Amino acid sequence: MDRPVMGWDEKRREWMKSHRTFGSRDETRVLVLTGSQPTPCKNPAGDNLLLRLFKNKVDYCRIHGYGIFYNNAILNPKMRSFWAKIPLVRAAMVAHPEVEWMFWVDSDAMFTDMEFKVPLERYKYHNLVVHGWPDLIYEQKSWVGVNAGIFLIRNCQWSMDFLQKWASMGPISPDYARWGKILRSTLKDKLFPESDDQSALVYLLLKEHKEWGDMIYVENEYFLHGYWREIVGKLDIIDEKHEDAERRAPELRKRHAETVTETFAEARQRHVAAECRRPFITHFTGCQPCSGEHNPEYRENSCGVEMGRALNFADNQVLRNYGFRHNNLTEGSTFIPLPFDFPGDESDELI
Amino acid sequence: MDRPVMGWDEKRREWMKSHRTFGSRDETRVLVLTGSQPTPCKNPAGDNLLLRLFKNKVDYCRIHGYGIFYNNAILNPKMRSFWAKIPLVRAAMVAHPEVEWMFWVDSDAMFTDMEFKVPLERYKYHNLVVHGWPDLIYEQKSWVGVNAGIFLIRNCQWSMDFLQKWASMGPISPDYARWGKILRSTLKDKLFPESDDQSALVYLLLKEHKEWGDMIYVENEYFLHGYWREIVGKLDIIDEKHEDAERRAPELRKRHAETVTETFAEARQRHVAAECRRPFITHFTGCQPCSGEHNPEYRENSCGVEMGRALNFADNQVLRNYGFRHNNLTEGSTFIPLPFDFPGDESDELI
Repeated sequence: MDRPVMGWDEKRREWMKSHRTFGSRDETRVLVLTGSQPTPCKNPAGDNLLLRLFKNKVDYCRIHGYGIFYNNAILNPKMRSFWAKIPLVRAAMVAHPEVEWMFWVDSDAMFTDMEFKVPLERYKYHNLVVHGWPDLIYEQKSWVGVNAGIFLIRNCQWSMDFLQKWASMGPISPDYARWGKILRSTLKDKLFPESDDQSALVYLLLKEHKEWGDMIYVENEYFLHGYWREIVGKLDIIDEKHEDAERRAPELRKRHAETVTETFAEARQRHVAAECRRPFITHFTGCQPCSGEHNPEYRENSCGVEMGRALNFADNQVLRNYGFRHNNLTEGSTFIPLPFDFPGDESDELI
Repeated sequence: MDRPVMGWDEKRREWMKSHRTFGSRDETRVLVLTGSQPTPCKNPAGDNLLLRLFKNKVDYCRIHGYGIFYNNAILNPKMRSFWAKIPLVRAAMVAHPEVEWMFWVDSDAMFTDMEFKVPLERYKYHNLVVHGWPDLIYEQKSWVGVNAGIFLIRNCQWSMDFLQKWASMGPISPDYARWGKILRSTLKDKLFPESDDQSALVYLLLKEHKEWGDMIYVENEYFLHGYWREIVGKLDIIDEKHEDAERRAPELRKRHAETVTETFAEARQRHVAAECRRPFITHFTGCQPCSGEHNPEYRENSCGVEMGRALNFADNQVLRNYGFRHNNLTEGSTFIPLPFDFPGDESDELI
């Protein structure tokens, strides 16, 4: 991070010109980035959860034709924990000039709607997309005004500059301690003294809005980040409502080639009430699956149990096209085969 | 598995016709299949190894544009352990009519040449490709005449029939016990009494060659399966030879967009002696990373240590385009940044 990338838009354009097989710039090319520490987890159940969380993301990416890169390297020894994603995103932008959007997703977040696709056309005039609430950012000046654990960032020079700015508030900077104080005095509810990436992002929106704000889209019309405690209690009823809809609408329930999954999303939206839609991303913030040191507010074991249920909820949407589903959401290791037309009358056709 | 799939070639053709976006049949479409048990590993280090083994396969697939599906479901309760891949391969063929080749890779195998691409054109007239040695199969009648932990199988009716036949020698069949006896009396070196998938495959090559053998390609010109004990001692010298070649040949060492990696494979082959080429797949047979119950012949801990080294060896080939490498092969969690032209003089260009 000590040498800024310059002239990236031109370099990227040059690369695209000399690699015509990628055609012209394609604004729908997405690379999902995620990762965890290089060493095994302290929590005995941690690595199995990381494995399943990774599988969930790989499933989502396969269905939508996205690339995925799992980072378990420390690219900059000073940029650990929540700061580690910044050097990774930068390195991935350089290694993937053909990709338009880098999609960072924290290891403790999972896709819980495998059909939903990020509405990229909505962000045509923006370079960074993050889940947040304008009144929490601009009125309440809260460090939870956005969630920085999931974001989309466009592969362009603006983003290089933004990442450089963002990183300059982190442990790589000689001003790290000073930034901690500034952030804490600006965002009154910030819990800990060190400068963190999320508070830094809220600060930039608040205090340097003129320079950065216009290109940042604060999203909250769907769960780009969904807080797990608001979601997990609804998973069973969501499943029920979807099964009801499938009983009513045969076009929803036909088993289909996995690669045409996206074409089913719209029909499903028509048949399921808005409040029963599957949440796009469920984020287990505070659960720390790898260390096991979850927020003390959370009931003992609720993190592990609910992550398992949400993973099975998502996995059922995938397994279905392979002809199976989990016996129930809580117990993950027994499966039942599904007829081709489940939950309708059996027929033997693949569509 | 109790209902055979019929007329699959026609059904697949029909599907391709009605989904023109996939164009005509593309014989280079590959889906890698792998997986492990649904529950956490008994070996405390197991899940972390599975996570890294999965990342290795995802990296390979991203570089080559292949899909990947990680199965941790039990699709048929009778078909566990090495038999579990058969119902999975069948389900994946149905869920992916657009894919020509299913590429099963055991969880304990890893790609150790990230540039090498399976020479699919060589298998134009075959439907199943497996690593093996004709003299071990046909002369010595050995159960290790092939390795059934890694294979390519074409998505077609022949394969549906073959999988049905193969499965009929497994635990799903009323003749399972009888098959155990037949296999043991045919393949004198078979170690255990139960019928296993690998012995069954050797048996079909030997005894039902007329029916199946012509469509099965027994490969051994490259390491489609490389036995780890013959490989791990050479990793350091292979790395050295490649670095030497990169010092001599600037075109090998330039950092490049990950997506053009394949175009470097050929140049590298020209500059590195055949005996120093990276092995395509290193297979840790007998290591059982998840249970930890490795072959008692192996030195305590040699499985874990050598898997870690081989994973780092492969990961270095990936990380390089992101500007980093592991400090050394043995210690996995420290990394060093690489200049753009490593190991040559520094320059700042991406090609």
